[in-house]
Amino acid sequence: MLCIGIDAGGTRTRLLARLDASAPWTIQAPGVNLQRDGLTVAVRHLGGLLRNVLRRYPGVKAVHVCVGVAGAGRMDDRERLATGLREALDPVPVPSLEVVPDVWIAHEGAFAGEAGLLVLAGTGSIVLAKSEDGTFHRAGGWGRLLGDEGSGFALGRAALRAVADAFDGGPATSLTARLAERHGLDGPEALIRKVYAEKMPPEQCAPDLLAEAERGDPVARRITEHQAHALARRACWLTGRCPTVPPRFALVGGVTDNTYYHTLLTATLRTALPGWTPVAPIATPVEGALHRACRLANTDG
Amino acid sequence: MLCIGIDAGGTRTRLLARLDASAPWTIQAPGVNLQRDGLTVAVRHLGGLLRNVLRRYPGVKAVHVCVGVAGAGRMDDRERLATGLREALDPVPVPSLEVVPDVWIAHEGAFAGEAGLLVLAGTGSIVLAKSEDGTFHRAGGWGRLLGDEGSGFALGRAALRAVADAFDGGPATSLTARLAERHGLDGPEALIRKVYAEKMPPEQCAPDLLAEAERGDPVARRITEHQAHALARRACWLTGRCPTVPPRFALVGGVTDNTYYHTLLTATLRTALPGWTPVAPIATPVEGALHRACRLANTDG
Repeated sequence: MLCIGIDAGGTRTRLLARLDASAPWTIQAPGVNLQRDGLTVAVRHLGGLLRNVLRRYPGVKAVHVCVGVAGAGRMDDRERLATGLREALDPVPVPSLEVVPDVWIAHEGAFAGEAGLLVLAGTGSIVLAKSEDGTFHRAGGWGRLLGDEGSGFALGRAALRAVADAFDGGPATSLTARLAERHGLDGPEALIRKVYAEKMPPEQCAPDLLAEAERGDPVARRITEHQAHALARRACWLTGRCPTVPPRFALVGGVTDNTYYHTLLTATLRTALPGWTPVAPIATPVEGALHRACRLANTDG
Repeated sequence: MLCIGIDAGGTRTRLLARLDASAPWTIQAPGVNLQRDGLTVAVRHLGGLLRNVLRRYPGVKAVHVCVGVAGAGRMDDRERLATGLREALDPVPVPSLEVVPDVWIAHEGAFAGEAGLLVLAGTGSIVLAKSEDGTFHRAGGWGRLLGDEGSGFALGRAALRAVADAFDGGPATSLTARLAERHGLDGPEALIRKVYAEKMPPEQCAPDLLAEAERGDPVARRITEHQAHALARRACWLTGRCPTVPPRFALVGGVTDNTYYHTLLTATLRTALPGWTPVAPIATPVEGALHRACRLANTDG
């Protein structure tokens, strides 16, 4: 029996395959986002990866798959992708194949399938709680126009705004010199051109913001604390709505790899959620996906 | 001698033409934005309008033109557009033709060419001061990713965010019922679909925010006041940088047509700029453009 877990994020796709009790095999590929890339591209890309795996394990009798995909918030999108992937695996029997939002497998990995609160801050952000009865509840995750508080995008955009404000005569900040040196943003024209014409992803400036906040720049520090509070507020709203979540939380996502931000966000969440305990994620999202695939396999007999 | 003023905004283009001392003639056409539509489209569109005017006034010996264009912040963009429009008018002599940012002609109209502070809040926002020596200085106007504080876009987006927050368990607001009724935003899926898939312009929700703020909804009121303060702060920074601007300000732009917001913004600016007096705009932007064209004509002799 072959189990496959896939973490298809916006930047990178990771795949883990395990045949019976053997050691897992892993491959990486470019990322996919269902909203950004559309269904056809997602089916072709992920279906191709799955056929690669089948070529490596010829003659398998059954495949169990769990795919976590970025931008797969809508149920009908996920069902259409699942149908496309089943067709890609034909004629190998696929007793179970599930497509879920990527944050679900991140939660599965972090808590090894148990209940708890996941605070994800990568390029975007979302707060996801799994209650004791196994159901997921979310807050945030509204995307860059409506939300993504405390995310790399929100932090980076706020850094760019602070530099624009300083050009306008607003509070001086050490971000001005740093973004000039590291991203060539040495004046208003360069800032406008980079952001709008060259479409520089704002999240590229998140590490600069965090570095200057850590060094004590008051503007950078105020922005960072404001963003951490905004994310923690959504965790509060969510836990208020879902009283059966055990009081533990885990932080995941690229921007939380920054030690300063990890510490700040943890402290902010502990203040916002009195009595809750931070826990280290147990496993990665792709391991969470493999875990779900294996669980499905066992459920199926 | 024929003078032509053009206000080419993102939504609509207005043109005023005046032959010697006769009454001005006006036409309207679709809008143009130099960043959004590009140089070729802008030249074709505005050049076509100018040739229309020439057909109406056959045999004119000279044409003086002032064009205010949205998205024309960069000098070299404006020069290229001016070159294209001169070619479109060929072979009629064009002793003077200037292409300027649309906010310049708004200032020219509002203050009849005199010095003062213009606070523009339409879909976007900007603060533009003309000092006693005739030079312009700006703050804000960084576009929707980096700024546009107090604009229709910023107000509408904040209204959508407040409704998203309420769905997440955040503060209840009467905006939820209003945006459901007026824009079909009756749940998280509808909100995501409308904003991201259907790309509903957020500024469509600005009137809803202002209506609920006026009715006393605390969330809508807090957002509106926050946005008005953010715009007033930029006016403060700007006047701090430009001490030779006489202490008077005028409000223009679509969202300031709302009486509640106009009153709030005026009060906020008076608090932020002690001793400054609000003045009513004297003329419209297209009248400002015609005014500049006539002034150029007189300068040229």
